[in-house]
Amino acid sequence: MSEEQSKVISLAVIPGDGIGPEVTAEAVKVLNKVTAGGPARFDLTEYELGAEHWLATGETLPDKTLDALKGHDAILFGAVGVAPGDTSMPSGLIERELLLKLRFSLDHYVNLRPSKLYTGVDSPLANPGDVDFIVVREGTEGPYAGNGGVLREGTPQEIATEVSLNTAYGVERVVRDAFRRASQRPRRKLTLVHKHNVLVNAGRLWKRTVEKVAAEFPEVTHDYLHVDAATIFMVSDPSRFDVIVTDNLFGDIITDLAAAITGGIGLAASGNINMDRTYPSMFEPVHGSAPDIAGQQKADPTAAILSAALLLEHLGFDDEAARIQQAVAADLANRGGKRRTTAEVGDAIAAAVS
Amino acid sequence: MSEEQSKVISLAVIPGDGIGPEVTAEAVKVLNKVTAGGPARFDLTEYELGAEHWLATGETLPDKTLDALKGHDAILFGAVGVAPGDTSMPSGLIERELLLKLRFSLDHYVNLRPSKLYTGVDSPLANPGDVDFIVVREGTEGPYAGNGGVLREGTPQEIATEVSLNTAYGVERVVRDAFRRASQRPRRKLTLVHKHNVLVNAGRLWKRTVEKVAAEFPEVTHDYLHVDAATIFMVSDPSRFDVIVTDNLFGDIITDLAAAITGGIGLAASGNINMDRTYPSMFEPVHGSAPDIAGQQKADPTAAILSAALLLEHLGFDDEAARIQQAVAADLANRGGKRRTTAEVGDAIAAAVS
Ligand SMILES: CC(C)[C@H](C(=O)O)[C@@H](O)C(=O)O
Ligand SMILES: CC(C)[C@H](C(=O)O)[C@@H](O)C(=O)O
Repeated sequence: MSEEQSKVISLAVIPGDGIGPEVTAEAVKVLNKVTAGGPARFDLTEYELGAEHWLATGETLPDKTLDALKGHDAILFGAVGVAPGDTSMPSGLIERELLLKLRFSLDHYVNLRPSKLYTGVDSPLANPGDVDFIVVREGTEGPYAGNGGVLREGTPQEIATEVSLNTAYGVERVVRDAFRRASQRPRRKLTLVHKHNVLVNAGRLWKRTVEKVAAEFPEVTHDYLHVDAATIFMVSDPSRFDVIVTDNLFGDIITDLAAAITGGIGLAASGNINMDRTYPSMFEPVHGSAPDIAGQQKADPTAAILSAALLLEHLGFDDEAARIQQAVAADLANRGGKRRTTAEVGDAIAAAVS
Repeated sequence: MSEEQSKVISLAVIPGDGIGPEVTAEAVKVLNKVTAGGPARFDLTEYELGAEHWLATGETLPDKTLDALKGHDAILFGAVGVAPGDTSMPSGLIERELLLKLRFSLDHYVNLRPSKLYTGVDSPLANPGDVDFIVVREGTEGPYAGNGGVLREGTPQEIATEVSLNTAYGVERVVRDAFRRASQRPRRKLTLVHKHNVLVNAGRLWKRTVEKVAAEFPEVTHDYLHVDAATIFMVSDPSRFDVIVTDNLFGDIITDLAAAITGGIGLAASGNINMDRTYPSMFEPVHGSAPDIAGQQKADPTAAILSAALLLEHLGFDDEAARIQQAVAADLANRGGKRRTTAEVGDAIAAAVS
């Protein structure tokens, strides 16, 4: 296809801190390779944001930067944050004021996290079986709403609250998205994960919503697991899962566990998706910024590269997304114990793109 | 020791539903065996409570029964609840109105859950290592407080909230208990599990309390993990844990996972402990009532028997508790694939009690 016919995708890149810049560079490399001469061409704008930027400027996510980000077609995000225990910035500040602020401001209500155990990848499980599921984690409400407060802080009479906010609007749109994704997968199975026997108010809303939306998808079977039981199945029978839909906090917990049993968060991709396309969606590896290995070309860029595939899928380039996934699968199948630099892994995957 | 010198322990037994009666019978068998002719003698009172009792009478936990329970030295609890999906009773009702009501009314602020991978027991992990830790789960507040509500239920404008209540009083007493337990273990290590980067109000209280109480236990080292990261370590390096202290909901989740990696909830014991001894503590297997296998002598009574050991420990009979744990360990080491009835397992463990 000639340049003239290819669509220009305006892509914001937020490399962030630690290993973020290294892994996003490889994701960009693969994005360029898979679209070369094809139907899309990337126009990149890099944004300097993250803990280091805060330390230098005191800025987390200024309004004008947020506005500028809204003008792009999609966002590729690396990782942000300082090392655990580093006291140079208040703990959690950059996560809340940048990462979560982006998810909430850009209405990323579908936090999509696929878990697949690729051939050639070691699982900590003795008999993992055929693991291939996706978690559709709600991304804009629940215990992440930032609601709650403190009374009599620092005294023996202190009380601290955290309020989980769950709306019919918020739950229904993410449940419908999960059913839609389930209906497009071979097994067509959806599992709601919650804790409705204890969290009765939110639980009732989630359960009722799943029952209601299920009627629109008669081809999809659905079941329910308490979050505690879900963690058991995650290690005893993970192949039972196809599509999981769950709230923001439960989704946070079980997707890290899901990543662990499929080879670690070094391989786990995610999309923060606004399905209404009112704002750009954002794609990021599940791993953090790992400052201890930053700048040493030790980080595995696979999660970032798989996140780039999710980005292409979201923008409608299913074929290109599949080609990245196949290239990653081929690379993983032959990795063995080989030690390669971040760039070498990116090069190998880019080369494997058909 | 003669009968005259032995202390009489007034024990309430709540066998409950499903496999509850079968497994508690074996726990009682072992309790009687280990104390026979010894320093303690059990005076049992059985209470008919649970889902079946509710179906028959409409009662969950009447005030007069709760008062009667308060008069005992300890409570042995089996399991309650109907099968998942059984609609003969409202979902979660018996869990909340009986089990959680007992934990809250009797101020069981230490929900103690040991996780140990015994020799002879299969883990789903390929390389579990030497797993031996305890989780001290807060038992009387957090998201379990039953706080929250619903507005415009069943409409597109519905909002459902869940409020996690955390008090300095509640957090400090359980953190201190966890440090005390850590100080008595060989590794003397405590890990706080929370999600303070997102749940900032509660998280700050938990972190500050751990720092404060740590000063009283200079011999104990302590660290911190976000709950999502904790689930990763639970499958990638569970031997790193010694004592975990965490809130009610995170504790619920990670203890099921901990049970799964150490051989399943069929082996997981727990104590709902009131360390101030203002009310009796309650000991129960972590597993549920499993109505599908009830009355068939298929259930494994090991978790109930290990819970009985925790009961003895709480009452100060450390020697007797250790003898049960050794008998269980000996039995587990030689189980292999043997199929035995619930009573046969109980008999074998009772016989192995030295
Ligand atoms: C960094 C943190 C705020 C974030 C979350 O809790 O969502 C992370 O754990 C994730 O899963 O993307
Ligand atoms: C039955 C349920 C209310 C209970 C809990 O959530 O605490 C159970 O899962 C447990 O862990 O004992």
